[in-house]
Amino acid sequence: MALDADDTLWHNEPLFTSVRDQFCAMLERYQPEGIPDEWLNGVEMRNLQHFGYGVKGFVLSMIETAIEMTGGRLEASDVSRIIAWGRDMLDSPVELLDGVCDVVEDLAATYPLILLTKGDLLHQQTKLARSGLGHHFKGIEIVSEKDARVYRQVMTRYTVDPERFVMVGNSLRSDILPVIEAGGHAVYVPYEVTWVHERVPADQLESLHFHEIANIRELPSLLQGFA
Amino acid sequence: MALDADDTLWHNEPLFTSVRDQFCAMLERYQPEGIPDEWLNGVEMRNLQHFGYGVKGFVLSMIETAIEMTGGRLEASDVSRIIAWGRDMLDSPVELLDGVCDVVEDLAATYPLILLTKGDLLHQQTKLARSGLGHHFKGIEIVSEKDARVYRQVMTRYTVDPERFVMVGNSLRSDILPVIEAGGHAVYVPYEVTWVHERVPADQLESLHFHEIANIRELPSLLQGFA
Repeated sequence: MALDADDTLWHNEPLFTSVRDQFCAMLERYQPEGIPDEWLNGVEMRNLQHFGYGVKGFVLSMIETAIEMTGGRLEASDVSRIIAWGRDMLDSPVELLDGVCDVVEDLAATYPLILLTKGDLLHQQTKLARSGLGHHFKGIEIVSEKDARVYRQVMTRYTVDPERFVMVGNSLRSDILPVIEAGGHAVYVPYEVTWVHERVPADQLESLHFHEIANIRELPSLLQGFA
Repeated sequence: MALDADDTLWHNEPLFTSVRDQFCAMLERYQPEGIPDEWLNGVEMRNLQHFGYGVKGFVLSMIETAIEMTGGRLEASDVSRIIAWGRDMLDSPVELLDGVCDVVEDLAATYPLILLTKGDLLHQQTKLARSGLGHHFKGIEIVSEKDARVYRQVMTRYTVDPERFVMVGNSLRSDILPVIEAGGHAVYVPYEVTWVHERVPADQLESLHFHEIANIRELPSLLQGFA
């Protein structure tokens, strides 16, 4: 069984949301009428193919957005502040979601667990170490994209039959749809905040391999129903 | 057998050197008496634990260095130039070293090959795809650090006896010393330029498991000598 990390095991999106808020507040000094939130989203999307997922790419996108939006008036001290936010994000403590600590320990006693996450390699490893959950996982797979091809590779690497592969995560686009496409089961545990790039139409979720729970505490009994 | 990527299979360091030169030239406008090269090195070392290896961390370190060195006078347009250099580095074509194309194809016919590299996940995958060498590798391992523990994990994952494990690379600190510590063989193929953080004292290399060749073309006959 594979588990996603950010916003499935530990809180992540609130860190980004909080920095986005500080970023907008900072730019108000240059642009008192406020700044459109889509601007940063647009720069992030444009940069995703170059910078990938993670804090460093986010920091570079914030700097680019701020320079573009201020027509180059951005002061160096504000560039420094943006970089400092990034360093704080990378260093911030890992807060587990409700139930994760117990459930992961429980599951590890019965199933071989894989941590399967995208993002920055060093940062994800650091967060796993800080989480205290590392020893429960048989394998750690940090990937640059989660598509059906990557899920098939993971199934092959761990010699798991697709029909017996279960992925648990909070992202429909990354943890659910491509797993079902690869023949596996997907358990959706929605997080309180959903990143705008992650939303998918509901009709794509009609599958016998799609399961949804509100809290990871419901996972063990769901899995018993599978057997 | 495992092979390092940057400056072992393809050129990498000259890209960094060229951007460092442009960076120094750019700062001359602020600091006509020239800037000490150690400044950037110091910021890079300080940031390594936060940002890890790779282009994005390098870009952030250049921006920080420039802001510090100019006492905050750095203009936003120069910040944009630094980020643009980073994007160019990430997008630049992959140039294989002399002999790599033939030798890797040859070796792949006889040995299971693993690509074992540190750095940015997405960027290393992109470079491997651009290199045209991807299909020769049985496994791709992109790691955040190459120490003896990581080498032992790789040996276990691919069920290779340390005595039969060979690592080929250009970095004494990352590709050679920790492999020998983990019980494997290490083949050093020095690159034309050595990153300043990578230098190690010569007396650490006295081991029967240490081998040195001048060009990767010498690798097949060296390996025949092992058997």
